Amino acid sequence: MAVYTEVPDNDLEAFVARYDIGGVLSCKGIAEGVENSNFLLQSERGSYILTLYEKRVKPADLPFFLGLIEHLAARGIACPTPIKARDGMALGQLCGRPAAIVSFLDGISVRRPTVRHCQLVGEALARMHFAGGDYAATRPNDLSVEGWRRLVEACSARADEVRPGLAVEIAREFETIAAAWPRDLARGVIHADLFPDNVFFLGDRLSGIIDFYFACTDFLAYDVAVCLNAWCFELDGSFNTTKARALVGAYARQRHLPGDEMMALPLLARGSALRFLLTRLYDWLNHPPGAFVRPKDPIEYLNKLRFHAGVRGLAGYGLE
Amino acid sequence: MAVYTEVPDNDLEAFVARYDIGGVLSCKGIAEGVENSNFLLQSERGSYILTLYEKRVKPADLPFFLGLIEHLAARGIACPTPIKARDGMALGQLCGRPAAIVSFLDGISVRRPTVRHCQLVGEALARMHFAGGDYAATRPNDLSVEGWRRLVEACSARADEVRPGLAVEIAREFETIAAAWPRDLARGVIHADLFPDNVFFLGDRLSGIIDFYFACTDFLAYDVAVCLNAWCFELDGSFNTTKARALVGAYARQRHLPGDEMMALPLLARGSALRFLLTRLYDWLNHPPGAFVRPKDPIEYLNKLRFHAGVRGLAGYGLE
Repeated sequence: MAVYTEVPDNDLEAFVARYDIGGVLSCKGIAEGVENSNFLLQSERGSYILTLYEKRVKPADLPFFLGLIEHLAARGIACPTPIKARDGMALGQLCGRPAAIVSFLDGISVRRPTVRHCQLVGEALARMHFAGGDYAATRPNDLSVEGWRRLVEACSARADEVRPGLAVEIAREFETIAAAWPRDLARGVIHADLFPDNVFFLGDRLSGIIDFYFACTDFLAYDVAVCLNAWCFELDGSFNTTKARALVGAYARQRHLPGDEMMALPLLARGSALRFLLTRLYDWLNHPPGAFVRPKDPIEYLNKLRFHAGVRGLAGYGLE
Repeated sequence: MAVYTEVPDNDLEAFVARYDIGGVLSCKGIAEGVENSNFLLQSERGSYILTLYEKRVKPADLPFFLGLIEHLAARGIACPTPIKARDGMALGQLCGRPAAIVSFLDGISVRRPTVRHCQLVGEALARMHFAGGDYAATRPNDLSVEGWRRLVEACSARADEVRPGLAVEIAREFETIAAAWPRDLARGVIHADLFPDNVFFLGDRLSGIIDFYFACTDFLAYDVAVCLNAWCFELDGSFNTTKARALVGAYARQRHLPGDEMMALPLLARGSALRFLLTRLYDWLNHPPGAFVRPKDPIEYLNKLRFHAGVRGLAGYGLE
């Protein structure tokens, strides 16, 4: 839930006048994405999303993100495509912030994904990995091992405010995971944050993937591991192996998962759980009182991390 | 800014299936209205606003509000019209809350109204008063003198936390205003909250009036007084008599303002300033820490109240 910046009507009209999308019919701040200010903009030509990039997104990364979705959309991936202003630029400036207009995608996100949703996500993820294969730009994953190390250090003094013993548990997990982290798996552009919030469905099809603002160049299988965490746990914390099989199976039908990637999945999932535990913990400890954004519960990811630490091998995921 | 309730996709689809508006294409929580959860719902038939009524709106008042906008929209007023479900009901239930779907209005609200905007608002207000003339239902104004008395009492112990001396100043103002409050002005259905947030413009026309959840039966001229407060002060606190003349003049060209209503305007404006000071002060003192809604600054209305207390007669408003 966001909307940080209010856009005055005259600034909006001046910004939109730079595009060939006709006059503004309406513009509503929407509760989508936690990092930026998003607006559903309706113009004489149709519906769009207007995004103002707030300070958590580095301006230097924006060409990578906007270039990526343009690349993917051109290859048939159901993601927003940037709308260019008459001067050919996808990136502008509004209310002192970098801003862009992208196409609007129909569909709604699901709160309780079914096995079928997991299957559709696995398939779309593999297609996205293929489509990103010839995207020339690269961006390191800020939230891989070195990023976790910084977060472990930043949180260690206060982690026990959230749960006694948490600092020690996190430090131990970090050491274990970092020591075993793979080096030589297939790499490419990954979404890195493909949660149910970021996927739209319409009837029986996946109609949209949004929020590419963590996209980076990393192990393709790490994206699968993020999805195992985000899509295959039930609300009560149990792991649903049927969903995992549907997701990984559908992925593998599009893009063969070689043995090394399959074998790495448990560790990648454990690392991914640590990543979301750490960022949520950091936000929990550091969100300003009275802020609009309600921080997400870090404990959900502590429980997932413990699940991964406790299972041995793919059998625990129903994937053997 | 709102969105309190998250609506799960399956609950939404079941709710919308009761209406003849086709399937759901998208549904975004929007930052509009501070009292309720609002969603911009796009279906196969078009755009709508879905509202879930949160606890600040009394369910018993909803038929008055929904009946009113249906009545006004049928008479050509640019306000949302309730969409009825197949069973003929405008009011349903979603996520345990009363809920309704209304038509979507194009337009954007202005942050800094011009003289022209004030003129359009005055004209639309008078037309709305005419159109509401034959609305049969009535609803007392909870936020007139007796309501203020309750708020004065509820805030008195802590008002000085906001500004030293505020409790005494408010009590004195309340006594002065209550003693002089008119009894016999023309009554009818009023909006009672016609702030710039609640009015949309499209090019040179007023395209929408929304948020009728304070509408009630009270002095018609009180609605004009609310608008003087909401539209005719500049951001620096100065009163713009050109805007006041444009607003009141345009109103009076549609609906003659008899002498008693004109003469009462300064006192009605002073009472209206007290009303918004009191509700903002109450919210300021009582909003839960970490709540999504950033309370509005009560001091803005203390300054407006002092302006009204200081001027004598219509000349101070440029209205003689």
